[in-house]
Amino acid sequence: MKRGIFISIEGPDGSGKSTQISNIKKFFEDKNLEIVFTREPGGTAIGDRIREILLDNNCKEMDYMTEAMLYAASRAQHVSQVIKPALAAGKIVICDRFVDSSMAYQGYGRRLGESVSVINSYAVAGCMPDVTFLMKLDPGIGKRRVSSRNQEDRLESEKVDFHQEVYNGYLQLEKDNPDRIFGIDASRGIEEIRDDIYKKLEEVLSGVIK
Amino acid sequence: MKRGIFISIEGPDGSGKSTQISNIKKFFEDKNLEIVFTREPGGTAIGDRIREILLDNNCKEMDYMTEAMLYAASRAQHVSQVIKPALAAGKIVICDRFVDSSMAYQGYGRRLGESVSVINSYAVAGCMPDVTFLMKLDPGIGKRRVSSRNQEDRLESEKVDFHQEVYNGYLQLEKDNPDRIFGIDASRGIEEIRDDIYKKLEEVLSGVIK
Repeated sequence: MKRGIFISIEGPDGSGKSTQISNIKKFFEDKNLEIVFTREPGGTAIGDRIREILLDNNCKEMDYMTEAMLYAASRAQHVSQVIKPALAAGKIVICDRFVDSSMAYQGYGRRLGESVSVINSYAVAGCMPDVTFLMKLDPGIGKRRVSSRNQEDRLESEKVDFHQEVYNGYLQLEKDNPDRIFGIDASRGIEEIRDDIYKKLEEVLSGVIK
Repeated sequence: MKRGIFISIEGPDGSGKSTQISNIKKFFEDKNLEIVFTREPGGTAIGDRIREILLDNNCKEMDYMTEAMLYAASRAQHVSQVIKPALAAGKIVICDRFVDSSMAYQGYGRRLGESVSVINSYAVAGCMPDVTFLMKLDPGIGKRRVSSRNQEDRLESEKVDFHQEVYNGYLQLEKDNPDRIFGIDASRGIEEIRDDIYKKLEEVLSGVIK
């Protein structure tokens, strides 16, 4: 491989992303391919400091545009410092949330629309995932799972209406990007979901997509 | 007045901004007008936390686009939380650095160009100064003044070439915005500069500009 593979995973909180990330890691580890696992917001020292501001429950007065720009700032750092170098070195980059999260949460959930797309085009600078797995699960179900797990951060504690808008945004993104976003019915069993993902990853590896 | 007046002051570090800000405050205080003095980056609790990241000498690996987006994020918060409400209440807002700093430092100094303008158009959301005083002083002279004053922050410690690019950017902005940006020869005496500023402020107040 001249260049690595970039995989992102998206979906509502509580949709089973973490479990499937473990499966995706295992898929590549079993093939002895070198992976770099990372997440947003964060992924760098500077990004982690931005993440602290974003998720702080004391920052309730945050303007929606400020929020969108902080996510984009963290992403620009992440792309230039971690993702691009890893891909250039031929590694497999697995990212827990990427640009689609901003589109769904800020573009649709906060209704900032097209501005989020424009700002993020500068942040990613052409570095987009080869495939994005979208875990599709009713956000009400996801939110109940998360609430029972731990104390919610600033974004998780938003009302169900907000999370429904975000989810509708994800479904629209899936429609708009059929070649990149691979939607997964996440209401099914863990193994069934894993099998779908592995089938898609085999396609990606064999160059059907690339 | 149905709406307040928005004044920003710009220029290289060491160009005498602080002294003239004191004079601008005095101008309005002598007329018993209510002023709100603020500064960028910062001006809000969230902005101050962003400012800490921006000026931290430990953040040397910061991507230029990340830097531009952090300034814009801080600005969006500042505009929505402080500047717009103060103007709506008919107050005089005096801001130490505003959007022209981003254009000069990131657009010209970092050579990010038009992207900085686009991102900041979302941050200011139409809220632009009625008048901007640009303190024009050779950046080499300004830098020597600052260096002798205290330890430099991450941006101040950039090489003279960078500060020259920034300064050229300011001069271009002055050319591009003749109705808003009022250039001041800052190599002159403090009283001479103050008299120029006061004359301009009288014009603004009497509605010549507004």
